[in-house]
Amino acid sequence: RSIFLLVPPSQHQVIRREIRQLIPELIGEFLGMWYVMATATAITCMLLFYNPSPFLPGFLGLALPWGFAFTFMVFAVGAISGGHFNFSVTLAFACFRGFPKWKALPYFFAQVLGGICGTLNMWFTYYPVGYQIAAGKPLSEATTVAAAFFNNADLSEYTTIHSFGIQAFYTAFLLFVIFAITDPYNPLAPGANMFPVIVGFLVMQLGCSLGMINQFTINPSRDLSARIAGAMLGMGKTALPGPGGMLWANQIGSMLGGISGGFVYEALVRPFMPRVEELG
Amino acid sequence: RSIFLLVPPSQHQVIRREIRQLIPELIGEFLGMWYVMATATAITCMLLFYNPSPFLPGFLGLALPWGFAFTFMVFAVGAISGGHFNFSVTLAFACFRGFPKWKALPYFFAQVLGGICGTLNMWFTYYPVGYQIAAGKPLSEATTVAAAFFNNADLSEYTTIHSFGIQAFYTAFLLFVIFAITDPYNPLAPGANMFPVIVGFLVMQLGCSLGMINQFTINPSRDLSARIAGAMLGMGKTALPGPGGMLWANQIGSMLGGISGGFVYEALVRPFMPRVEELG
Amino acid sequence: RSIFLLVPPSQHQVIRREIRQLIPELIGEFLGMWYVMATATAITCMLLFYNPSPFLPGFLGLALPWGFAFTFMVFAVGAISGGHFNFSVTLAFACFRGFPKWKALPYFFAQVLGGICGTLNMWFTYYPVGYQIAAGKPLSEATTVAAAFFNNADLSEYTTIHSFGIQAFYTAFLLFVIFAITDPYNPLAPGANMFPVIVGFLVMQLGCSLGMINQFTINPSRDLSARIAGAMLGMGKTALPGPGGMLWANQIGSMLGGISGGFVYEALVRPFMPRVEELG
Amino acid sequence: RSIFLLVPPSQHQVIRREIRQLIPELIGEFLGMWYVMATATAITCMLLFYNPSPFLPGFLGLALPWGFAFTFMVFAVGAISGGHFNFSVTLAFACFRGFPKWKALPYFFAQVLGGICGTLNMWFTYYPVGYQIAAGKPLSEATTVAAAFFNNADLSEYTTIHSFGIQAFYTAFLLFVIFAITDPYNPLAPGANMFPVIVGFLVMQLGCSLGMINQFTINPSRDLSARIAGAMLGMGKTALPGPGGMLWANQIGSMLGGISGGFVYEALVRPFMPRVEELG
Repeated sequence: RSIFLLVPPSQHQVIRREIRQLIPELIGEFLGMWYVMATATAITCMLLFYNPSPFLPGFLGLALPWGFAFTFMVFAVGAISGGHFNFSVTLAFACFRGFPKWKALPYFFAQVLGGICGTLNMWFTYYPVGYQIAAGKPLSEATTVAAAFFNNADLSEYTTIHSFGIQAFYTAFLLFVIFAITDPYNPLAPGANMFPVIVGFLVMQLGCSLGMINQFTINPSRDLSARIAGAMLGMGKTALPGPGGMLWANQIGSMLGGISGGFVYEALVRPFMPRVEELG
Repeated sequence: RSIFLLVPPSQHQVIRREIRQLIPELIGEFLGMWYVMATATAITCMLLFYNPSPFLPGFLGLALPWGFAFTFMVFAVGAISGGHFNFSVTLAFACFRGFPKWKALPYFFAQVLGGICGTLNMWFTYYPVGYQIAAGKPLSEATTVAAAFFNNADLSEYTTIHSFGIQAFYTAFLLFVIFAITDPYNPLAPGANMFPVIVGFLVMQLGCSLGMINQFTINPSRDLSARIAGAMLGMGKTALPGPGGMLWANQIGSMLGGISGGFVYEALVRPFMPRVEELG
Repeated sequence: RSIFLLVPPSQHQVIRREIRQLIPELIGEFLGMWYVMATATAITCMLLFYNPSPFLPGFLGLALPWGFAFTFMVFAVGAISGGHFNFSVTLAFACFRGFPKWKALPYFFAQVLGGICGTLNMWFTYYPVGYQIAAGKPLSEATTVAAAFFNNADLSEYTTIHSFGIQAFYTAFLLFVIFAITDPYNPLAPGANMFPVIVGFLVMQLGCSLGMINQFTINPSRDLSARIAGAMLGMGKTALPGPGGMLWANQIGSMLGGISGGFVYEALVRPFMPRVEELG
Repeated sequence: RSIFLLVPPSQHQVIRREIRQLIPELIGEFLGMWYVMATATAITCMLLFYNPSPFLPGFLGLALPWGFAFTFMVFAVGAISGGHFNFSVTLAFACFRGFPKWKALPYFFAQVLGGICGTLNMWFTYYPVGYQIAAGKPLSEATTVAAAFFNNADLSEYTTIHSFGIQAFYTAFLLFVIFAITDPYNPLAPGANMFPVIVGFLVMQLGCSLGMINQFTINPSRDLSARIAGAMLGMGKTALPGPGGMLWANQIGSMLGGISGGFVYEALVRPFMPRVEELG
């Protein structure tokens, strides 16, 4: 390391070093998304496969463990990869927080790959119960069961453009809070490394606000990985791209919303945070 | 800054500086209330618009994310504006904690404006589901649906004066605890910037205690903004002023209660907190 | 203060000083129990007075805010009085943690008095709903309603001696954990002043374990104050002493259990905590 | 102690010292498992013995206090024994974190013994309610009641090898997170001694993911102790070994999974944690 101070590394060496650093980051995002999808979509299975459901009508029972799946993975690999597990988060950090832009697409790829593995892991866990229930039922209910596996049922009340707006708004809320609690200039940001817990509560809170609409993805990586896994397991077009253009509403709506939420924080809140010398 | 020590600023300069400082504070209260109303009243929509409700009968599932809406916003803008989001809090801090009295009314205005925007944001999210449900129903149920949008249904069991008393008592409890956990002389106040989480749990706890009565506002800003948004969307007098004088019970009862709760803490608890020199 | 180092205070002065110190402690216990009973018993009212209940069947929704009532009060007055709000806690601390034994009975008195005020406060909040429900019902259900006000319904499945055992066991668990998380020699005790939150979770956890049996008092002060308030409001012997000797089972069982739980911690765990010099 | 630096202790002395140190560790694991089983299995009793159940359909209400049982015991005795309460944890720490291998079996023995005492304690608490319900019911439901006492009902949808896989996968998830939040090289590990709370949330989250399948033991000590206690109380082969080879699926599956989860963390995450000198 001290050699670098004397002889600056060649561009070739810099690139090799950055790629060497990228690999554990992608492993982190991959493992994290695996865990999130394997445990959190399983909660939906318990909700839909048992009668009476052990969660219905307690949506909090769904949303709280959903949120904590992210909490644990931010604790586990956040120090390596940043713990995004959501391409909207990756994009917003690339726009406003100096996350290297060229890493965004590899991150998306690792997140989706991990999510697919996690969804298949969940499928291994629940298919005996799920297929048994789906077996004796008409197609519409079997679709519900399938949707439980892949969490991407689409509600017909909403137009595509309306869904787009909702994904944008609530992903903006998500990123606004994430930007606030990870802002080094925010003197009220959670201490004692407690911000991953706040992230979990945040996912829970937004889930309790709009969980029944469009399956509250507000997360392009999680949405896409569940759809791909669904297609791999024979759901076909019901999963990917899904009915009514919802794929694009969820993907693009969430991405633009995430960037907007980060922008609002950076433009309207961060400039007014007390400077260090004022805190004195 | 060091110049000020030599030449004291003119009164004109002081006022300009304070107004320049006020603007980000009002932006903070505005954004915070937007978030609170947009996410938290949406929880009520999920409670009332789906059948079976994903929350009924789990009131905790309603009250916990309600509370955490405040948690996240205190984290986000608390360092700028104090994170009141409730005119009773603003008033109590103005009375006993040195918050500038002349800022109270602008704060109220910003809180209500943010709350109106948040309520309209929620309306954008839920109107396709809400109107679909309201369409085929008799008026009384449609009113319930409307009330779900604006969270100000009024129970007929209670007289106005009784509601006044309840709002006063429980806002007093709210402020008593807020004063305690933000008291710099309290050696047991939450550390590691965890007090916004405690605020969230507190709103949850009081919500679980009296949420079915008068919609547990204990918050004039949130009550008024939901009523105004309701009137803007065609609910008329059902929303503003609402039946039976409840507007005044909620507004004045909560304000007086908040001041009383702060006073009880300042008079009966704070004077007996161990002094720094005793803690050694 | 420095004078005391030169001239030791007379015994008369010492007693006067200790009594002067006792008054804010009693005020703290009084206010804390007021808050606990006013908010927490109100949760039971929401459980029993509304149909469908907003909590049934979510017992967690009852037990979590119950627990947090204690959390907030330990934050608020714990630095002054210790935040017992439970005579079993007072007794165990008097036996093993140097709490002055002569203060135990005044603490009990303040706790019960605060609990009575809190219960009456809750009664003021809920009587219009409660009486309306009780009005059209047979006596047995009206008793349930009354019991909801005062939280001391007794289950007939249990003998007095069995109830005594249960109160003893679970109060022992309560004190075992309280002793652990407040042990200055415990290097894993919660930091950042988070132990009041743990106390809240603990009350929740024990409530979820045995809340349906004997109304999970494990707290003589809370049990007695609800019974006295019940008698004051015309419930007569149903409230005080209540059927089947449960008063004594709850009171004495809980006290002995609390002392036992503290003893187990002090005898089997505390001696083996790493000494400061080992922690380096 | 300073003498040891001059004259190294004989092997005999070393062994005696380690055995003397082992005793409080076994007491800690014993007391901890007693508490866990006495309080947490009692939650299941409240779920199954009351009608309507105070938890059904709120599985969160079951899983959250289950998790916190571990939280409180890690706070209480974690500084002495490490707070395993799960032989899979003991094994994984023995493999990768330097826990002395020769202590693993004594730990298992103490955990199971404590778990048996806790289960009997729970039986003392609930048998009047449980037997009353079981009395008037056909055998199948009585078995459910018995299973509620001992938490080891087995679902017929799953083959033994499938159950083995599920136990392995989810115990791996459990250990992966436990290794992460207790890793001294992880700069994002929870501060302020909050990791026992995260352990509680983790058990809750995994319980909400697969609690209905194989009763979410992912814990050989808890599984075995409930089965032995069941046999002691007359359940015979229904409890031990239980139907369908589930005993071995739970025991061996969980052990291998725990070791695998620890291995994945140690191999794929820990090597990439920022070194202290990088954190500066």
